[in-house]
Amino acid sequence: MIPRYSRKEMVDIWEPATKFKIWYEIEAHACDAQAELGVIPKESAAAVWKAKDVAFDVARIDEIEAVTKHDVIAFLTHLAEHIGSTEARFVHQGMTSSDVLDTTLNVQLTRAADILLKDMDRVLAALKRRAFEHKDTVRIGRSHGIHAEPTTMGLTFARFYAEMDRNKARLAAARAEVATGAISGAVGTFANIDPRVEEHVCKMMGLRPEPISTQVIPRDRHAMFFATLGVIASSIENVAIEIRHMQRTEVLEAEEFFSKGQKGSSAMPHKRNPVLSENLTGLARLVRMAVVPAMENVALWHERDISHSSVERGIGPDTTVTLDFALNRLAGLIENLVIYPENMLKNLNKFKGLVMSQRVLLALTQAGVSREDAYRLVQRNAMKVWEHGADFKTELLADPEVTAALSPAEIEEKFDLGYHTKHVDTIFARVFGDV
Amino acid sequence: MIPRYSRKEMVDIWEPATKFKIWYEIEAHACDAQAELGVIPKESAAAVWKAKDVAFDVARIDEIEAVTKHDVIAFLTHLAEHIGSTEARFVHQGMTSSDVLDTTLNVQLTRAADILLKDMDRVLAALKRRAFEHKDTVRIGRSHGIHAEPTTMGLTFARFYAEMDRNKARLAAARAEVATGAISGAVGTFANIDPRVEEHVCKMMGLRPEPISTQVIPRDRHAMFFATLGVIASSIENVAIEIRHMQRTEVLEAEEFFSKGQKGSSAMPHKRNPVLSENLTGLARLVRMAVVPAMENVALWHERDISHSSVERGIGPDTTVTLDFALNRLAGLIENLVIYPENMLKNLNKFKGLVMSQRVLLALTQAGVSREDAYRLVQRNAMKVWEHGADFKTELLADPEVTAALSPAEIEEKFDLGYHTKHVDTIFARVFGDV
Amino acid sequence: MIPRYSRKEMVDIWEPATKFKIWYEIEAHACDAQAELGVIPKESAAAVWKAKDVAFDVARIDEIEAVTKHDVIAFLTHLAEHIGSTEARFVHQGMTSSDVLDTTLNVQLTRAADILLKDMDRVLAALKRRAFEHKDTVRIGRSHGIHAEPTTMGLTFARFYAEMDRNKARLAAARAEVATGAISGAVGTFANIDPRVEEHVCKMMGLRPEPISTQVIPRDRHAMFFATLGVIASSIENVAIEIRHMQRTEVLEAEEFFSKGQKGSSAMPHKRNPVLSENLTGLARLVRMAVVPAMENVALWHERDISHSSVERGIGPDTTVTLDFALNRLAGLIENLVIYPENMLKNLNKFKGLVMSQRVLLALTQAGVSREDAYRLVQRNAMKVWEHGADFKTELLADPEVTAALSPAEIEEKFDLGYHTKHVDTIFARVFGDV
Amino acid sequence: MIPRYSRKEMVDIWEPATKFKIWYEIEAHACDAQAELGVIPKESAAAVWKAKDVAFDVARIDEIEAVTKHDVIAFLTHLAEHIGSTEARFVHQGMTSSDVLDTTLNVQLTRAADILLKDMDRVLAALKRRAFEHKDTVRIGRSHGIHAEPTTMGLTFARFYAEMDRNKARLAAARAEVATGAISGAVGTFANIDPRVEEHVCKMMGLRPEPISTQVIPRDRHAMFFATLGVIASSIENVAIEIRHMQRTEVLEAEEFFSKGQKGSSAMPHKRNPVLSENLTGLARLVRMAVVPAMENVALWHERDISHSSVERGIGPDTTVTLDFALNRLAGLIENLVIYPENMLKNLNKFKGLVMSQRVLLALTQAGVSREDAYRLVQRNAMKVWEHGADFKTELLADPEVTAALSPAEIEEKFDLGYHTKHVDTIFARVFGDV
Repeated sequence: MIPRYSRKEMVDIWEPATKFKIWYEIEAHACDAQAELGVIPKESAAAVWKAKDVAFDVARIDEIEAVTKHDVIAFLTHLAEHIGSTEARFVHQGMTSSDVLDTTLNVQLTRAADILLKDMDRVLAALKRRAFEHKDTVRIGRSHGIHAEPTTMGLTFARFYAEMDRNKARLAAARAEVATGAISGAVGTFANIDPRVEEHVCKMMGLRPEPISTQVIPRDRHAMFFATLGVIASSIENVAIEIRHMQRTEVLEAEEFFSKGQKGSSAMPHKRNPVLSENLTGLARLVRMAVVPAMENVALWHERDISHSSVERGIGPDTTVTLDFALNRLAGLIENLVIYPENMLKNLNKFKGLVMSQRVLLALTQAGVSREDAYRLVQRNAMKVWEHGADFKTELLADPEVTAALSPAEIEEKFDLGYHTKHVDTIFARVFGDV
Repeated sequence: MIPRYSRKEMVDIWEPATKFKIWYEIEAHACDAQAELGVIPKESAAAVWKAKDVAFDVARIDEIEAVTKHDVIAFLTHLAEHIGSTEARFVHQGMTSSDVLDTTLNVQLTRAADILLKDMDRVLAALKRRAFEHKDTVRIGRSHGIHAEPTTMGLTFARFYAEMDRNKARLAAARAEVATGAISGAVGTFANIDPRVEEHVCKMMGLRPEPISTQVIPRDRHAMFFATLGVIASSIENVAIEIRHMQRTEVLEAEEFFSKGQKGSSAMPHKRNPVLSENLTGLARLVRMAVVPAMENVALWHERDISHSSVERGIGPDTTVTLDFALNRLAGLIENLVIYPENMLKNLNKFKGLVMSQRVLLALTQAGVSREDAYRLVQRNAMKVWEHGADFKTELLADPEVTAALSPAEIEEKFDLGYHTKHVDTIFARVFGDV
Repeated sequence: MIPRYSRKEMVDIWEPATKFKIWYEIEAHACDAQAELGVIPKESAAAVWKAKDVAFDVARIDEIEAVTKHDVIAFLTHLAEHIGSTEARFVHQGMTSSDVLDTTLNVQLTRAADILLKDMDRVLAALKRRAFEHKDTVRIGRSHGIHAEPTTMGLTFARFYAEMDRNKARLAAARAEVATGAISGAVGTFANIDPRVEEHVCKMMGLRPEPISTQVIPRDRHAMFFATLGVIASSIENVAIEIRHMQRTEVLEAEEFFSKGQKGSSAMPHKRNPVLSENLTGLARLVRMAVVPAMENVALWHERDISHSSVERGIGPDTTVTLDFALNRLAGLIENLVIYPENMLKNLNKFKGLVMSQRVLLALTQAGVSREDAYRLVQRNAMKVWEHGADFKTELLADPEVTAALSPAEIEEKFDLGYHTKHVDTIFARVFGDV
Repeated sequence: MIPRYSRKEMVDIWEPATKFKIWYEIEAHACDAQAELGVIPKESAAAVWKAKDVAFDVARIDEIEAVTKHDVIAFLTHLAEHIGSTEARFVHQGMTSSDVLDTTLNVQLTRAADILLKDMDRVLAALKRRAFEHKDTVRIGRSHGIHAEPTTMGLTFARFYAEMDRNKARLAAARAEVATGAISGAVGTFANIDPRVEEHVCKMMGLRPEPISTQVIPRDRHAMFFATLGVIASSIENVAIEIRHMQRTEVLEAEEFFSKGQKGSSAMPHKRNPVLSENLTGLARLVRMAVVPAMENVALWHERDISHSSVERGIGPDTTVTLDFALNRLAGLIENLVIYPENMLKNLNKFKGLVMSQRVLLALTQAGVSREDAYRLVQRNAMKVWEHGADFKTELLADPEVTAALSPAEIEEKFDLGYHTKHVDTIFARVFGDV
C-alpha cells in the first residue's frame, strides 16, 4: 500500500481496528446462534454484546500476541478483559481461528468490491458524458499507429465505456465469488459446532455459507477475485495508453488537465506531461502482479497450510487500495480531459485524402476492376501522397486507369467524411441503449 | 503445444485446415448477407458456396503468403482459384482482415471451451462417484501438514467436486465472454459494410455481435478467458498436490493406478511414483503462465496494434490443449486412484488419541474449567503423546486435574470417531443436492 | 510493506527522511563539482553543506509538493529555506529531477543489497553448521515423495548451502547492475551539465557513472535486479518446502523450534505447526511477483515515461523488505531446527530393506543376469515388501532365481548403509572446500 | 514453439533425434569412464561406440516407451537393438534416468545460449553501425511523449547497443549457470557410481560437474537462465516500442523496410505498418511468461519431484526458439530500418524553439534572476508557443522582463543545436570505447 496512491475509505477496510471489529461481530453472532441452540448460556451470549461499542486496543492485542504468538487467542484474551473472563469462556467455542479469519477476509473483500463498484460507476458516468459530448468529433482511426480511416472521439469513449461496463459485471461476479463465510471448525466437519451457527453468522455478515470448507474457505474463489481485478487494471491501462498517445507532442489531440501551479518539469518549463495516465499504466502493473500469487495460493496442503496468509496480507490491501485509487484517478482524468478537435482534423489531413484509400479501392472493384488491379491502382497513387506529399484525390483524378472506371463525381464522393460516421448512432444505441 | 500433452480433438481446432474452413464460412456467410442487402450479386454469393466441401490447400496458401506477406489476402487468392476470380471479387468486400481473424479466433475459443466443459463433466462425474464411494472412509484431517481432527475421504473428493463445479460455471461465463464476432471494418465504424452483415455472420457462427469493436474485438474478453483457465489449472494443481501427499511413502493413503508393464524407475525397481499428479502440477504452471501476457494484450494502441497476435498464436492453442489434456489426465487419475482406507486408520492413530485433543478441551471448558487452564491441561497430556508415544486417553484418565472435571465415561466418549462424521450427510447435501 | 514482515534496518532505507538525505548529498556533491568546474561560485557550493546535519522536514516538503505537484522542486524549495535562496539558486543547476531520483533509487537498492548480502551470510553460516553437524545423519532420500535410496541430512543442508551460495554470487552481480548513477540532464546529452559532475557525484555516492542514460537510468538493470531477488526467494521456498515435509506428522524428521508460551492452534492444543516455513513459502510468492512488472518497466517511451515510477515505489521497498525479513526468518529457522535422527532411521526402514533394491539390481546384472531379468527379479520381491510388509532381504534369500546368481553373503552386503554414504566427504569438499 | 516464429538451427536442438544423440553420447562417455575404473569391461565400453553414427529411430523408441512408460528405458532397449544386448547390459550402470536427462537438458540449453549469443552479436553489429551512421542526426528527445530537448538518433542506437551488450554479458553468465552436468545416481550420493564418471562425462560434453546434486541438477540455475531470457526479451520490447513510435503517422521518423510485393492491409492500400516491431512486442511477452514457472520449478519435493519436467518441455524449446527468432528479426529490422532525418528536424521544430526552454531558464538564473522568477518568465512565453503557435525566440526577444536580463545575442545563442550534441563523442567513447 503506497500512501500516495491510497484513498482513506479503502484503506480503512484494512486497518487493524476494522479487522478486530469484524472479528468481534463474528464471535458475537456465533454466540447468539450457540445460545439459541442451547450450547452456551443465553446470558453469556448477551454479555458479549457489552463490547459492542468498544474500540479495541490494537496495541494491547499486539502485546498479548507477542507472548501467545497467536493473533486470535490474543484478541480473545483482550475481549475477556472487556466482558470478563467468566462470560468470555464461551466465546469462540467449537470454532477455529480460521473460521474468524477467513470470514473476516471475505467481509473485507466484499466491502472493498462495493467501493470499487462505486468507483466504476464514476468512471462509467464520465466516459458516457464524454462519449456523447464527442459523438461526432471526427478523428482518424489508427491501426498499428498508422492512419487508417476516420472514426469519432465519441466512439473511443464509447468503447472504453463498454469495456468498463463489462468489467463492472465481472467485478459483481467476483464479489459474489468471495461473499461466503465459514464457521465449520478445525477441518470443516462441523464436529464441534452446528452448521446453523455458520448460517446465522453468514446471514448477519452479509455472506452465504461456504457449502464445503476445510479449515479454510477454498482459495479458488480468491484467485478468481484477484484475476478479475487484474483484468480491470488492464482496461485502465488501455485507456491510459490511449490518452498518452493522444497527448504526445506530434499528436496533441488531448491533454490531461493541467492546473495552474503545476510544474511539468523542474528543468523544462514548457512541458505538460501526461503523468496521470503514465502513472495509471504503472498502477495497472501493480494490480496485475497479484494475479499469479493468488493462483499459487489455491493449492494448499490437505485441509490447509498457511502459505496463502502472508500473500493475502500483502495483496489484499495493496491490490484493492491501488485499484480504488487508480479508478478514481481515471475518472478525474476523463472528466477533465482537454480535447482538441481541431488538432484531430489537422492530423486526419496530414496525408491529404489518403485515409479514403479503401473507399476508392471498393469503388473500383464495384466498377468492375479486378481486386488485384484495384489494389495496384490505389497503392500507386497512395505512394505519391505518402512519399511526396501529393493530394490523393488530385492524383486519382489524374490517373487515366482510375478515371476509366470512376467518374470525377464518383471520385469526389469518396472523400465525404459523413460516409464514415453514418453508423455512429447505431453503435451508440448498442452500447448505451436507445437514449 | 507439447505433443505428449495433447489430445487430437483439441489440437484439431487449431490446425490450419480448421482455421481456413472457418475463414471460408465467415466469408461465405458475409456474402450471403451482402447479397441480401443488394450490395453484391446473389449469384456471386451463391457461387462462393461452391467451395463448401473443398479441403483448402494449406501449402498452397503458405506459398502465396510468402509473396504477399499477408495471410488473409493469400487465402482469398487461393479461394479465387476454386470459385473463379470473377465471382471471387465480391468476397471480403467492405471487410478488413481482422473481421475474419478475430471472429475466427473466437469461434475457436468457444469450441475449445465446449471441449473443456465436457472434460470437466468427466472430472466432476469421477469426483462425485469417488466421493460417495468414500463418504464414510475416515481419515485424519491435516492443517499445516500436522494431524488435526478426523474427516472423511469422501469430503475431500466432495470439496474438489465443489471447486471444479465452480470452475465449470466460471468457464461457462468465460466462454460467453469470447462468444462474440465482429464484421465492422477497418476501424470498427461499419463505414464500408452494413452492421446487418455482422449480425448475420455472427448468428450463423454461433456468436453474438460485438457491440463496439475497433479493428479488433476488445482483448479484455480474452484476458478474462485466459485468467479463468488459469484458475481452473490452479484447482487441478490443488487436487494433484493432495494426491502426491497421499502417495508419499510415509502416508500411503492412496496411489495412482500403476499398470502392469510400467516401470517406476530405471534404477530402483521398487518405486511407484505419483508421476501423473506431479505432471499435472507442472501443466498447471504452463496454463497459468498465459494469464499475464493475455492481460498485457488488453492495451492496444488506438484502434489496434498487432502485438497481441503472436501471443495468441502461442497461448491460444497451447493453453487450451494443455488444459484439455490435464483435465482428462485428472479424470483418469481420479477414476483409477487406489485408496487405502486401512492406511488412513493407521495414520490417524499414529499419535494415539491425540487428534481428539480439541474435544477434550471443549469438554473441560464446558465442565467449568477456564479456557486457559483447560488449554494447559490438554497440552501437557498431549505433549506426552507427542514426545513419548503415550496413549492420550490413558494419560487423561491418569491426570487428577482432568478427572476432577470429567468422569472416565465422559473422557471415553470423547474418543468416538462418529462424533466427527455426523455432519457429512449435511455437507454432501449442500454439495450434491439431496440425493 | 507488511509491518509484521519487516525489519527496521531495511525499512529505514526507504523512509522519506533517508530519501531526502540522499537527494541532499547528490545535490551538494554536484555543486562541489560545478564549483570546481567554475560553473557556480565556490562559496555557493560550500554554503550548501551548511545543511549537512539538517533533518529535513518531511511534512513541510509534502506541503510544498501539494502546491507544485513536483517532488524535487518541493525539496529544493525547502532546502532554500535552510541555506537561503541566494545560495540555493545554484543548486540543481543543469540537472533534471531524474538525475536525483534515479541516482537515489540506485543508492537505496545497493544499500538494500548490502543488507541482503549480510543476511545471506547468516543463512549460509547456519546451513554450514547444520550440514557438518548432520554430515553422517542417515535419512532416506526421496524422489517423487517415494523412498529411493539413503542419503544424509548433512547433504540436504549442504545442497541448500550451495544453492544459497550461488544466490549470493547472483546478488553481488545484481548489486553491481544497479550500482550506477546518472547526472546527464533532461534527455541524457549532458547539454547543460558537464559529464565530470556525474563522475564526481557517482564516486562520492559509491556508484559508477551510467555509460549512456536518457532522462533515466535504463531499467533493464532493475529488471535484472528484481529477477535475481525472485530467484533467491524461490530458493527460500525450496528450503521451506523441505522443512514442511520433514515436519508433517507422518514424517516428523524435523520440527521448527517451538517456544514455551507459543500456541499452535486455538482449538487443538496438541499441534505444533511449521508456520515459519509455510510463511516463507508465501513470502517467496510476494517477492517473486515483482519480477514481471520490473520487466514490463524496461520498455519506456522514447527518452522516458514515468510508468515505471509507481511500480518501483511499490516493489522497491516491498521486495527488499520482504526478502530481508524472509532471509532472517530462514536463518533463525535453520539455526534452531530440531532434528530427529531416530525418526529418520525409522522412516528409512518403513519398507524393510526395500530402498536397497537398486544395489541388488546392479549386483544381479554384474553377476551376468540380463538387465530385463534382473529388473523382473527385483521387482517381484520388492512388491512383496510393498504390499505385504515382507522383509526384502529375507525374500531375496528365499528366491532361488536370485540365489542362483548371488551368494547369501553377497546379498547381505548389499544392505550396508555405509555403501551409500561413502562419498559424502567428497561432496562436502566440493561444496565447502577442503576443511 | 510457433512454426512461423522459429529458425531451424534452434529448433534442431530440441528435436528428439538431437536429444537421443546427446543421451547416447552421455551413456557412451560414462561407459568409457566406467571401463577406465575397471567397473565394466573395456570391450563393452568400446562396443557402445559402434552406434556412433546411428540415427536413432524415434518412432521405434516411442513404440517401446508406449509399453514401458519410461523414456530412458525405452532408449536403452533400442540401443541394445543396435549394439547387442550382451554389451548393452553395462550401459547406464549405476546411473539413474535423471543423470542422462538433466545433463542433456543442460547441453541443450548451453547450445541454445551459444546461438543466442551469436544472434546478439548480429544485433550489436547492426546497432553499432546505425549508431555511427546517425551519430549526428539530430532529433528531439522526448520524455512522457512530450518534446524535451534535442538529442541524436545515434545516441538512441548507442543506448540500445549498451543495453544489448549488458544483456550479452548476462546471457554469458546465464549460460555458465546451466553449464553443469550430473552423473550422481538416484539421490545424488554417488552410491552406485564413482564421481570420476561424472567428471569425465561433463568434460567430454563441455560442462562442469554439478558440485552437489540430488536426483536432479538444482533448478535455481534454470530459473536464473530463464529470468535472464526474460530480461533480454524486455530489452527487445524496448527497441520495438521505440520503432513503433517512430513509425506512427504523425511522427514518421523511421519506417520498417517494406518490400515491393508486401501488402500492409487487405482493405487499405496506403498502409505501411510496423508489424515486425509490433510482433516483437508480442514475442517479448511470450519469452517473459516463462520466468515465473521457471521460478516455481525451484522448490522440488525432497530429492526431486517431476513437476518441473512438463514445464521445461514447454519453456525449454519455446523460449529459446522464440527469443532466437526475435533477435534475428530485430537484427534485420535494425539493419534495414529506413530513417527520415528531415522528418526529425520537422518534428523538432513543431513548437518553434520551445525545446530550448531549459537553456533560457538556466541563462536567466545565471544572469541573476531567481529560480522562481526565471521559471515563471520562461513558462509564460512557452505557453504562447504551445497554445498559439508563436515562435519562442521572437516572444522572448519581445518580453522586457527577459531582455532586462539577457541581451538579444545571448538569447540568440541559446537556440544553437550544437549546444546539445557537444558531448555525443564523449558518450560514444563510453559505449563503444575509443574508436
